[in-house]
Parts: sequence; structure tokens; C-alpha cells
Amino acid sequence: MRVLYDGRVEEYRAVWMEGKKIKCIDQRVLPENFVIREIKNTDEACKAIKSMMVRGAPTIGATAAYAMAQAYLLGEDLAKTANALKKTRPTAHDLFHAIDLVLNSSDPVEEAEKYVESIVERCRLIGKHGESLLNDHAHILTHCNAGALASVDIGTALAPIRMAHYSGKSLHVYVDETRPRLQGARLTAWELKNEGIEHTIIADNAAGYYMWKGKIDIVIVGADRVACNGDVANKVGTLEKAVIAKEFGVKFYVAFPSSTVDPKAKFGAEIPIEERDEKEVLEIAGTRIAPEGSRAKNPAFDITPAKYIDGYITEYGIIDACGIKKFITHLVAKTK
Amino acid sequence: MRVLYDGRVEEYRAVWMEGKKIKCIDQRVLPENFVIREIKNTDEACKAIKSMMVRGAPTIGATAAYAMAQAYLLGEDLAKTANALKKTRPTAHDLFHAIDLVLNSSDPVEEAEKYVESIVERCRLIGKHGESLLNDHAHILTHCNAGALASVDIGTALAPIRMAHYSGKSLHVYVDETRPRLQGARLTAWELKNEGIEHTIIADNAAGYYMWKGKIDIVIVGADRVACNGDVANKVGTLEKAVIAKEFGVKFYVAFPSSTVDPKAKFGAEIPIEERDEKEVLEIAGTRIAPEGSRAKNPAFDITPAKYIDGYITEYGIIDACGIKKFITHLVAKTK
Repeated sequence: MRVLYDGRVEEYRAVWMEGKKIKCIDQRVLPENFVIREIKNTDEACKAIKSMMVRGAPTIGATAAYAMAQAYLLGEDLAKTANALKKTRPTAHDLFHAIDLVLNSSDPVEEAEKYVESIVERCRLIGKHGESLLNDHAHILTHCNAGALASVDIGTALAPIRMAHYSGKSLHVYVDETRPRLQGARLTAWELKNEGIEHTIIADNAAGYYMWKGKIDIVIVGADRVACNGDVANKVGTLEKAVIAKEFGVKFYVAFPSSTVDPKAKFGAEIPIEERDEKEVLEIAGTRIAPEGSRAKNPAFDITPAKYIDGYITEYGIIDACGIKKFITHLVAKTK
Repeated sequence: MRVLYDGRVEEYRAVWMEGKKIKCIDQRVLPENFVIREIKNTDEACKAIKSMMVRGAPTIGATAAYAMAQAYLLGEDLAKTANALKKTRPTAHDLFHAIDLVLNSSDPVEEAEKYVESIVERCRLIGKHGESLLNDHAHILTHCNAGALASVDIGTALAPIRMAHYSGKSLHVYVDETRPRLQGARLTAWELKNEGIEHTIIADNAAGYYMWKGKIDIVIVGADRVACNGDVANKVGTLEKAVIAKEFGVKFYVAFPSSTVDPKAKFGAEIPIEERDEKEVLEIAGTRIAPEGSRAKNPAFDITPAKYIDGYITEYGIIDACGIKKFITHLVAKTK
């Protein structure tokens, strides 16, 4: 991804490997600070995923794949490493998919690199296919960050936007700030600014207002896990945007690589939803905003039933609502 | 309203008058600090409304009524004061209603006091009527703050909740934090805590998730202006909650005193929506969260079309969706 830093333009990935070390952009401190961190062992990799230093389903998968490769290089017990990594976060499917892939491979290092390259290539294809949905002067709404930071490079939801921008289309992106962790205001806006793509940050509450006013042509979001019936687990608030979009006749698309599909989840309701620390709601930048004694609930994801989704943008092309079950059945059969 | 402060329980109103001075709770610094401010002239009254030191449609109306009375006592030009006050905020109808009422009165001081007492009495009646909607063990969602702080005392949306609590019903209130200004997390939670009513703060994004899960029985919100066809302007995000509630079969009620009805607005689309400073989105507690150079839009309200509203809780009783137009026609005829 294009990063404007210290007056220079540089190319970065969200996570990569150098020798026995994993390196990553610390997503917790953007956009104020651009900091590259080193992950030296399994324990640090687990902490990086858990604390959301790295985040986004494909980037979590990539970090886990690299952590398995690292454990192999350090002569550690891979089954133990796999076990520890699987306990970090419960919702994103790519995590489990990537760990099993490397665990069952004869060459963990090569397998991890191959897996990460496949994510980037898939994102490129998602961008290529998805670009056709965006007309010149399109107004797009996105929720959370499904950009290069979330998927090693290029992005899932942001891939079609990047590609359309590169091919000269004029776009305007409405960016949901995405409480409680503000991935929209902090990360998506940062990626769009680096690319020079026009954007407006809005409170999550305002998305419905702009759809009602007819200001938004299309919604594109990412996914953390996709069930076999096309239900989607994604950042909390996605469900609201999807229902509103349906109500006001705005097209709603979900972009993801096939590694996000969980062949074991028949329906969305079977997908575990991570409940995170209430402090993420009760405090902002370390300052408590709520009265002492008040409590909060903080589900990190929600489930968007397939009936609210107009189409799925994957590396294989755009799958419409009618075709998604068949597509996933084929996909699952192929990978067995 | 009941305020727990410094280990004592005291009764307060959001705004009141002492001699020639208006006094109010500074709603910008709650819940960290409980501070009473003095408003000594029209200029300070305008600033108090504009800066949201006082906020909520009925409290804005009450403050404006008192400011008119104060101008009268100070020998100022009432037409000029009315003009300045009307420019403070564009959406809440109570502001314009209260100013005109006092301006056309022969005794501004008495008229202002009468008006403010009538708000409190209306809120009491809203509570009495609305309580019938809340069963024992009801789970209620509310958005923004439509409590005693917003309506001098008792509340509009919070009035039925207070009354049900006083009559011994066990309740649980889900409180939308209400970005960008966090009136839910800061003010509604503070009022509920002071009353000892069980509550959970959630990110605005999570309301849809809890409705989808069947955790919420009823939504009650306030209103800033009600059009003659029953469309409602209220805090941005209300529209989203109403659409989601309809989709998931959750009852959606709006509570307001009749002073919030604008006889001149035929439809919601005619109501002006205040656009506030983008800093409210781009900064939190003075710290910038978005990249330098990124811009934001900050509409403070949205319009909820009448078709998403199951009922209206007013001082005259609960009006259902079919009856609202007729009710407003009667109301407007009566006040002419």
C-alpha cells in the first residue's frame, strides 16, 4: 500500500517476514504515528493479534501463518503454537484456515509465504472484479477498515475503490468512523488519504441519513467469516448498514477472499461473536466518558443475514445473492 | 431530577431562574463534573444554547423562555433578544415556540415560568401514559438523551422509564452512546445511575445486533421537531434505529410534549437539519482521531418517516400511527 511518510511515498504491507522476524505496521497508533513493530516469537504474535496491533481477517490469517513459520524456524512445537494462536480471537475465519494450512504442510516457511502471496493476489482480483460496480463519480459508503491494513495489501472492500481510482474514476467515499475502535476514522481515512481518494468521515449514526437523502450509491464492506448460506459476520454495525441500504434501495456488497468462508458454519447464527473489553466503549483515549459505575457491552461483530446482501465480491468474480450458496458448495467441495 | 452528588441526594432541574439570573446544569462537563452555571444576559443565553451547555428540545425552549423573561427584567429590547435566540440552533421546534409565546405575552416573567411549569407537567403526563407500554422486566433501547436534562425535569423518552421504575417494575435500559457528542454514554447513563435503574451502554453500531438477537422489547426516543404528518426530527441515528426496529419487529415509540410539533412543517423533509462543526467527529476530548487533512460531515439530526413509528407518547396520551395526523390537526386548530 502507498504510505505517505515523512514527505516520502513508500510501499508497505500490513505484515511481512524478514528472516526469523515478523514485521508489521502497528495499527493501534495510526494515524498519529506510523510505527513498524517486530514480532520475535509465538507469545508476541498472540499479543499482536489479541491487542489488534494487527487486525482484519486476512491480515490476522497472514500474521498467524508467519507465526507458524517463525515457530518452525525457531524449532518450537508447531501444534502448541497453533493452539495458542487459535485462542487469540474467535470470529475471523482466516485465522483458523491459515494455521491449519501451515500446520499440515511439509514446508511451513514456504507454505506461509505462499499463503500470504495468495491473499495479495486474491485482493488484486477482488479489486479487478469489483471495480466494474463503481461508476465514475460514484459515492460509496464503507464501514470499518477492510483495506490494505486488514488484508496485507490492496484491501477487500477498498480493493475495488483503489482499482477504480487507479483507472481514473472520480470517487467519493463516506467513511463510517466505526465505534468503538474507530477503524474507519483512523485507518480507512488514512489509507484513502495516502491514495489521494476523496472521502468524508461520518459518525456511524449518520450513514442512514445519507442513504435516506440519496447521497450514497453503493455500500461495500469486508467480512470476518462467511457462512455457507451467505450470512456474513463483520464489524458490529454492518447489519444496520445492510438493513438500511435494503430499505432505501442502495446496493450492498461484501468483499472477501475465499479463505474467509467457513465450510463448517451452515448459518450466520453459528459464528461465534467476540465480546471485547467494555473499556473500549466506556473510555476514549484513556479517558472515561461514562459515569463511574455504569457498565457497557462490546460485541465486536454482528451477523448480516444473506437476504440483505446484493452481491459478494471474491477473487473468482462477483457472485449475486441467488448464486452464493451454490458458489460456496463448489468452493468447499474443491478445497476438500 | 434525582442527583447523587458528593454523597448526598438532591433534586435539580436542568434549568431554572433565580431573580434576574438563569441557572443551569452544564451538560458539557457531565458526568465527570457536576457544575451549575449562571446566565446573566441574552448573549450568555445564546452561547449556552449554541455550545450545548443546555440541550434537548424542551430544555432549549425553557432556557429561551427564561432568557426572554431576563431580557424583560433587564429592560432590553425583547424583539432583538428573540431574534438573537432564534439564531442559536435551527432544528428544535420548542425554541421558536417558547420565544414567540413569551414575546406575545403581557407578562414575560409569568409567561416564562408558566411555560416551564407546563413542560414539567407535560413530561409527568408523558411518563404516566408511557408507563403502560413497559412491562415488568422490559428491555428498552433509547438513543441520545431525552431525559430530565433535555426537558427541564423527568424527561420525555426517560419519563415512562422513570415512572415504571418508581412503581416497582424491574427494567433494563440499553443506552446508545450516541456519537458524536456521546449524550447517551455521558448524560442518559448519568440520569439512570442517579435513579438506580439498571442499564448497559453500547456503541451505536451494536443496537441492530441486540435487536436481531431479540434482546430489546421496545425503543423509546425523544423528538426535536415533529411534522404534521408524524415525521420526526431527532438526534442523528434515530432513523437507523427505527428502520431496524421495524425490520426486527421491535416496537418503536417517540415521546414529546405538544410544543415539539411544528404546525408549519407538513413533512419531515421540510425540517432544517443542523450541520455542526466537523471537529465533533474528527476530535475526541480535544485529541484528533482522524488523519490530518481528512474532513468530516456532522449532521446533528435526521428525519424518521412516520411509517417507522408505532406510536407517539404525548401529554394527551399515546397516539398510534393511524391517529397521529388527526391528532396534530386537532392540536394545531386548538392552539390557533
